[in-house]
Amino acid sequence: MKADIITIGDEILIGQIIDSNSTFLAAQLTQLGFFVRRTVSIGDDADSIITALNDSVQNSDLIVLTGGLGPTNDDITKDTLTRFFHGNYILHEASLNIISQFFAIRGREMTERNRRQAEVPDTCEPLLNRIGTAPGMLFRKENKIIVSLPGVPFEMKALFENEVKPRILQHYTLLVHLQKTILTIGLSESDIADRLDQFENELDKELKLAYLPSPGLLRLRLSISGDNKDHLNKKLNEKSNKIVAMLGGQNVFGYDDDSLPKVIGEILRKYSYQLSVAESCTGGSIAHLITSAPGASVYFRGGIVAYSNEIKQSMLRVDQNTLEKFGAVSCEVVEQMALGARKFMNTDFSLATSGIAGPNGGSSEKPVGTTWIAVAAPDKVISRRFLFGDNRERNIIRTSLTALNMLRNVTLKYIKNSI
Amino acid sequence: MKADIITIGDEILIGQIIDSNSTFLAAQLTQLGFFVRRTVSIGDDADSIITALNDSVQNSDLIVLTGGLGPTNDDITKDTLTRFFHGNYILHEASLNIISQFFAIRGREMTERNRRQAEVPDTCEPLLNRIGTAPGMLFRKENKIIVSLPGVPFEMKALFENEVKPRILQHYTLLVHLQKTILTIGLSESDIADRLDQFENELDKELKLAYLPSPGLLRLRLSISGDNKDHLNKKLNEKSNKIVAMLGGQNVFGYDDDSLPKVIGEILRKYSYQLSVAESCTGGSIAHLITSAPGASVYFRGGIVAYSNEIKQSMLRVDQNTLEKFGAVSCEVVEQMALGARKFMNTDFSLATSGIAGPNGGSSEKPVGTTWIAVAAPDKVISRRFLFGDNRERNIIRTSLTALNMLRNVTLKYIKNSI
Repeated sequence: MKADIITIGDEILIGQIIDSNSTFLAAQLTQLGFFVRRTVSIGDDADSIITALNDSVQNSDLIVLTGGLGPTNDDITKDTLTRFFHGNYILHEASLNIISQFFAIRGREMTERNRRQAEVPDTCEPLLNRIGTAPGMLFRKENKIIVSLPGVPFEMKALFENEVKPRILQHYTLLVHLQKTILTIGLSESDIADRLDQFENELDKELKLAYLPSPGLLRLRLSISGDNKDHLNKKLNEKSNKIVAMLGGQNVFGYDDDSLPKVIGEILRKYSYQLSVAESCTGGSIAHLITSAPGASVYFRGGIVAYSNEIKQSMLRVDQNTLEKFGAVSCEVVEQMALGARKFMNTDFSLATSGIAGPNGGSSEKPVGTTWIAVAAPDKVISRRFLFGDNRERNIIRTSLTALNMLRNVTLKYIKNSI
Repeated sequence: MKADIITIGDEILIGQIIDSNSTFLAAQLTQLGFFVRRTVSIGDDADSIITALNDSVQNSDLIVLTGGLGPTNDDITKDTLTRFFHGNYILHEASLNIISQFFAIRGREMTERNRRQAEVPDTCEPLLNRIGTAPGMLFRKENKIIVSLPGVPFEMKALFENEVKPRILQHYTLLVHLQKTILTIGLSESDIADRLDQFENELDKELKLAYLPSPGLLRLRLSISGDNKDHLNKKLNEKSNKIVAMLGGQNVFGYDDDSLPKVIGEILRKYSYQLSVAESCTGGSIAHLITSAPGASVYFRGGIVAYSNEIKQSMLRVDQNTLEKFGAVSCEVVEQMALGARKFMNTDFSLATSGIAGPNGGSSEKPVGTTWIAVAAPDKVISRRFLFGDNRERNIIRTSLTALNMLRNVTLKYIKNSI
């Protein structure tokens, strides 16, 4: 089954916004077993919409459009689809109720323009948008489904999940497509390719392995298609376990939607450990990552962003002589930072970073990208030196993620030794 | 002049990567004066490439393709273009030199597969890729230019900037297209629409105003097209100044590529002020934003992520009675946090946040989204209460940006009063 995605909006074509809707829909449709043939982005222009639609209806089984359903004059998707599918506008009462409430709650007057958002062509099945003012529309033509959704990402996602997905699953008979993504950190792409060389050569045809690098991480996506879900699931897990064994558990921190903050949170929560951080070069990025996980206050006590030597001394009691002798970016200082954080914030574990994020501040001895990370555990403090690149933004994220993985490994080892 | 963008790669169609190349190219081409007709993403498949190319060559004047130029078997863009433009492979010596060096530096052996990356069809003008192994290709057909670039974003960007742009400017006679983006915070989309209602109705036809909301911010993009650059520039600035006057300077923090951390950094640097932060609900996000600006160590001394009441007490000396009486999310506590940060980190200004980011932790009196922000200046401390939404991620970013804008306004006012 083939699917097309059409995103509509001038703001995409002038490069003002990233078209994340296409990415979301492509992932969702692939997961459901569709082969996404293409995605097209066009402007708020009736001819462009009709040209794209004609091509898609000819070549694909499912077409999902997003965008152009707002109340203003430049939003013309609904008018265009009404003409394309030879409809006449009728009022959708359920949508009107939601729109009225929307304005009532905000104490704002509902205008005629807003009221017209509840009108849909009588040739469509309206899809109720519970968190916005534009309903979605579903059309059927020659055994194909054509869906139009609002462009606001969270409205689009909710409508897809709640209204579109159930109707798609009922209408199409789809091959089972399963995938499992192995989340790795600490090995380069070529390291991994070397370790998996033979495994990849011997991989069955129904299986596919993709390398997906992003700053600091590499995701390995293993996918499989077929009819028998149980059989596919078994095979997928078998192969995935093999990969993890070849890469080493210390370099694999999770699967699919896991994240390092989430994984670490689960460990700390389970064993009732408390965590603190002392950040220099990462400047708050690690604390921010940790606290992006809901419920982090259970295990995260706090952090010091010690961006200056004064704060390293006053808040973390890093020794002035050590700072002068070894410099802020050194094994000695980063270990004192971790120990200071652990002691003064009274936690079981702590994490510290000190490095030269760039673009300036490097020397021949300590070039930009030089970074020290330390983890203090109840029984010891360990530290490691890394040499990252020359891009500030990437250095901050790589340091943050590498530090979190060091913490994960130290914590797991401590737990193992304690049992 | 119309332009099409074609991005090639299975990873886009399964939703594993966001197609940021399209966004970059769309913005660049718009800026150069092209009207981007559409962007299409297709898989690594010869038929799809040829279908897309045929359509684009028929309808647009410039076509930029990215992706599918790697050394592996699934990369078929070069073969497809060689056939499409009836070429035969020849070796591009300059590219071979770069590829040889690439492997020599890394101490890796150059394989036959790598060597073949230096081959290009004799019907193209090769574009030297100085930071990767795949050269770009430029074809000319019926007075149109068709360019193929590698999919790796930083290679693509460098090639576009250094090799493609000069050739485009030489080949096409383009209308001048100017745009200016006004960066606002603190006003809702409908607030702004109300204030600008009459202004928008009276706007000349050559001018366009677009609303671009993102969490915590709203950008207003004003654009204009014509022949006379000076005239257009003058008009654009005139209208943009009018908008700023109508919205109020406190709600406009910059233009175009400005960011709040950058703007604040410039103010603090100029007046040699030092800054510290004390974050509860934002969990390090503000410190992270501030330190994402290169050179932040000049004005940013450090921060305390006081995620627990213990840290609020021990590191910021928030009074225990105040915490018990008013709760952590209160005017009294957030002001003590800001004053504590300013005092103990010895800075001119400080910023503090305390709120309920969600999804849990709310009460009827203080629902999820309740947030206090305080700014301490040399002469006073001020605080304000906000009620954001129920999404944790958005609450953190909205609180962070709102706090930075409060800091900006307090700092500017202090400077004004001091002079």
